[in-house]
Amino acid sequence: MDNILRINMSAAGGPSVKKEGLGQYAGLGGRALTSMIVATEVNPAVNPLAAGNKLVIAPGLLSGTIAAMSGRISVGCKSPLTGGIKEANSGGQAAQVLARLGYAAIVLEGAAPEGKLYKVFINKDGVKVEPADEYKMLPNYALINRIKKKYGEKIACMSIGPAGEMKLSASSIQFTDMELRPSRAAGRGGVGAVMGSKGVKVIILDESGLTNREPKDAVKFREANKKWVEGLKAHAVTGQALPAYGTNVLVNIINESGGFPTRNFKEGRFEGASAISGETFAEIEKKRGGNPTHGCHRGCVIQCSGTYVDKKGKFVSKQPEYETTWAHGANCGIDDPDTIAKLDYLDDDYGVDTIDMGAAIGIAMEAGVIKFGDKRGAINLIREVGKGTFLGRIIGSGAAVTAKVFGVERAPVVKGQAMPAYDPRAIQGIGVTYATSPMGADHTAGYCIATNILKVGGFVDPLKPEGQAELSRNLQIATAAIDSTGMCLFIAFAVLDQPETFQALIDMINAFYGLELTAEGVTELGKKVLSAELDFNRKAGFTSADDRLPGYFYTEKLAPHDAVFTVSDSELDNVFKW
Amino acid sequence: MDNILRINMSAAGGPSVKKEGLGQYAGLGGRALTSMIVATEVNPAVNPLAAGNKLVIAPGLLSGTIAAMSGRISVGCKSPLTGGIKEANSGGQAAQVLARLGYAAIVLEGAAPEGKLYKVFINKDGVKVEPADEYKMLPNYALINRIKKKYGEKIACMSIGPAGEMKLSASSIQFTDMELRPSRAAGRGGVGAVMGSKGVKVIILDESGLTNREPKDAVKFREANKKWVEGLKAHAVTGQALPAYGTNVLVNIINESGGFPTRNFKEGRFEGASAISGETFAEIEKKRGGNPTHGCHRGCVIQCSGTYVDKKGKFVSKQPEYETTWAHGANCGIDDPDTIAKLDYLDDDYGVDTIDMGAAIGIAMEAGVIKFGDKRGAINLIREVGKGTFLGRIIGSGAAVTAKVFGVERAPVVKGQAMPAYDPRAIQGIGVTYATSPMGADHTAGYCIATNILKVGGFVDPLKPEGQAELSRNLQIATAAIDSTGMCLFIAFAVLDQPETFQALIDMINAFYGLELTAEGVTELGKKVLSAELDFNRKAGFTSADDRLPGYFYTEKLAPHDAVFTVSDSELDNVFKW
Repeated sequence: MDNILRINMSAAGGPSVKKEGLGQYAGLGGRALTSMIVATEVNPAVNPLAAGNKLVIAPGLLSGTIAAMSGRISVGCKSPLTGGIKEANSGGQAAQVLARLGYAAIVLEGAAPEGKLYKVFINKDGVKVEPADEYKMLPNYALINRIKKKYGEKIACMSIGPAGEMKLSASSIQFTDMELRPSRAAGRGGVGAVMGSKGVKVIILDESGLTNREPKDAVKFREANKKWVEGLKAHAVTGQALPAYGTNVLVNIINESGGFPTRNFKEGRFEGASAISGETFAEIEKKRGGNPTHGCHRGCVIQCSGTYVDKKGKFVSKQPEYETTWAHGANCGIDDPDTIAKLDYLDDDYGVDTIDMGAAIGIAMEAGVIKFGDKRGAINLIREVGKGTFLGRIIGSGAAVTAKVFGVERAPVVKGQAMPAYDPRAIQGIGVTYATSPMGADHTAGYCIATNILKVGGFVDPLKPEGQAELSRNLQIATAAIDSTGMCLFIAFAVLDQPETFQALIDMINAFYGLELTAEGVTELGKKVLSAELDFNRKAGFTSADDRLPGYFYTEKLAPHDAVFTVSDSELDNVFKW
Repeated sequence: MDNILRINMSAAGGPSVKKEGLGQYAGLGGRALTSMIVATEVNPAVNPLAAGNKLVIAPGLLSGTIAAMSGRISVGCKSPLTGGIKEANSGGQAAQVLARLGYAAIVLEGAAPEGKLYKVFINKDGVKVEPADEYKMLPNYALINRIKKKYGEKIACMSIGPAGEMKLSASSIQFTDMELRPSRAAGRGGVGAVMGSKGVKVIILDESGLTNREPKDAVKFREANKKWVEGLKAHAVTGQALPAYGTNVLVNIINESGGFPTRNFKEGRFEGASAISGETFAEIEKKRGGNPTHGCHRGCVIQCSGTYVDKKGKFVSKQPEYETTWAHGANCGIDDPDTIAKLDYLDDDYGVDTIDMGAAIGIAMEAGVIKFGDKRGAINLIREVGKGTFLGRIIGSGAAVTAKVFGVERAPVVKGQAMPAYDPRAIQGIGVTYATSPMGADHTAGYCIATNILKVGGFVDPLKPEGQAELSRNLQIATAAIDSTGMCLFIAFAVLDQPETFQALIDMINAFYGLELTAEGVTELGKKVLSAELDFNRKAGFTSADDRLPGYFYTEKLAPHDAVFTVSDSELDNVFKW
């Protein structure tokens, strides 16, 4: 993992490939690496679809090793959705394979001539960039089937669907899982549109002949990994709740808290919650012969993923994640798991972010395009996205554009990105993260749900403003660091509650690289990453005015708590003053 | 003109009306008044479509007097198009009538309940706000015909079409002219969407029983007005070119300069320019029995307006203004006056800004929705806006949204507003105005064409960066002051070249109000207005990053001069440092 692979899609005579050392980026992985490359090399004023933008794809520091949970991959660029810096994070197999191929990052630069489409094939012997016009406008599942036939099954792929080719602002990049399904997504911020603007349809990573990356101190590394796995298994969230029910375990919990945004954030509880809960999903999957306990990549011990099948046992989609279940469920007034799973599949297939799609459909419902609860209507709307109709292009451009085009004031977005599945009026800590994260509204950037609701890492009353800014700050710093390791963010539950598990993570990094990193060092890394991101956004024109929730969250009371967002502007402005 | 009329559309029990003194706003008119009210009373963070925004409609200081050219009206609010403060300015009869009714401003506050539509009727006896559901989704021409039947012809109206009701971001407010046609527009920035969000379809001003406003010193006022008119008639632009050919006199001139943006700003000269020139328009109008020399309001001595008729002599539209002729002509590759006039009519009828419409269609053409030069296709696109189809809603949301939805990088917009009819690469002064004006890309905010091309007020080489920032600064200051007088901006040609004409304007204001204003005082007023606007925008989140042209204007060479925009960022950042 000592090299950066730069592919210049604008090069005269066709795409050019350059392998170079890490140089100034040595020691960085994942989000730290994507954000540092973007902040250093991309002009913050650039149009996100212009040749001057770069798409950086980086596995984490521990990806490709035997370390459990190390299979996350970061995708960075200037976002077409937010206009700021973006790191979108995915599971799947690509992180492990890319790291074993020896690349700390792939950087897509320039832009292919209009209308040209390419595929990139990387194996242990080198890199090929070839025309791929035959894949034009293929949805991701059909694409990967074609790729499998040509390249076999010892591969991991990242690809865009029609949405990315159309450069829609809510397009995702999809990553294949262990079954070679393009079911995992770097969903947020329109990273797929940037890949589309570069003219790259798919990157195929061939794992033939690769071995695990070897640590400097193998003994210490194995020891630390053992403690690491033990710690994850010992914690109630990572050892029990997530394996049993996946992320949908949150449906009942968040609904009970009154922070489950329903019908475009009109209410905080959904009368149909139990029908779409993690418990219900698991039951359906067990009954029909799906699988509620499954990992999205090899080396995962939490197994929060799953497989959803229809009544005949036929694959419908991966088990939809909690945020998808919410987005296409409660937020659209839909209480049917089959519909939600179908929408999840279509989102993955066309390559769009499930959160922004659910929010956009909710807005279209408020505008009267279809009615709340209209299952077929919702499916049709996502099909429109895939077809690239005018309506589909609106929806595929995300919630903010959909609200603008339909003249809807109530758009639950920050920095142009849709809020996920937690209402910031009933769970104020997450509102601080939505408002201030350089990523736009993003639950993963500082998951205050942990402490506000799950009482992990202590407890801060979700309905009061006190302590939320500090909570969000600390979690945003920790997350920026974790996102750089390649570790799945869910490790945070165990790490926050169990100091010895946090130490095991640090020990693994130290044993692998021969470093002497401390907890303070981890904090410093997180701050460094956030600072670079904030600085990029400042240069791109963001100010404290962008670090606010939409006005109606301060005035429109949310049932059942009749809550409004009460964290003060000055507290928001102090989140990153450390 | 000592009162402000406040209409609160949110009031319990239906809209409430309050007449109050000018208070802190005494001495202000037109843009000075709209911008000061918006800057003082509107939270810069508000969603432009929310009840917290205000729509301020203000005639100028000299409106309603016998002063020639004093018939302009300002409309201010937070703009749904730019997200910043907005003053859109219109001709027509409303300024004179509103001033004679004694109102320095109408302020629409709050928002009617969703789905409710109202009309406002104002005469010398008072104000009525009544339900107007019968007018729902009526285009402006049909609406005004209905209004005429009910209220007679001694009225002036301001109204929104279907676009404003749909709250599309490029909606205009249309003002009736001397013939009671809704042909004049406060076009820019989506002010019509704000009127729509308030639930007001039309404001009807009844001029029955009104008299001219009387000056403090009638003798001096008449004397000054005489010199004023003489000065306007003596200048080549206001005395000859504009009366003969209207604003379309610019087509050949700007085309010759190489700054006539053609096919979505791809080239600087249009091969079809002579077919759509002012000379051609005047010839057609004379031949068919239209009228090339006409005023948009009583008291106009420049008479740059006109009436365009079809081959049978039937009214098609007002004579399209130069920016419209460009937007729907060269920018769409269309060289047919009949098509341009039809598009102008449709824009006015549905209530959308002709500039943003032409730019949006140009982008749709670049995206392949229709082809450049497709006359019927262009007309159909505007009809879609009127119908509110999904495509129509995209186009009606303006150029920036259209580019986003179609994934087009080349969007000629600043702060979300489309550039008008002058390419900033070939005419660099106007590029400074586009970049820095608090209004977004707006030629009227500091019309450097005067000095770059027409050699009015001196000469600054349009192709060089030197002197452009200073030129734009001075013109932006002067314009902010002129926009506050209610004077048509075209007086600036005479005022810039003839000190005695400038003095006549100052003398009129002094004689009317009993003031001792000086030229320095005018400059101070301009700076005061701009400072308030810039301050609002800063609080709304604008930074120097927003004061830039889109990237491709710095890199993509424009034929025939192979010019790029070369005014430096630091010069742009110093425009408002006085």
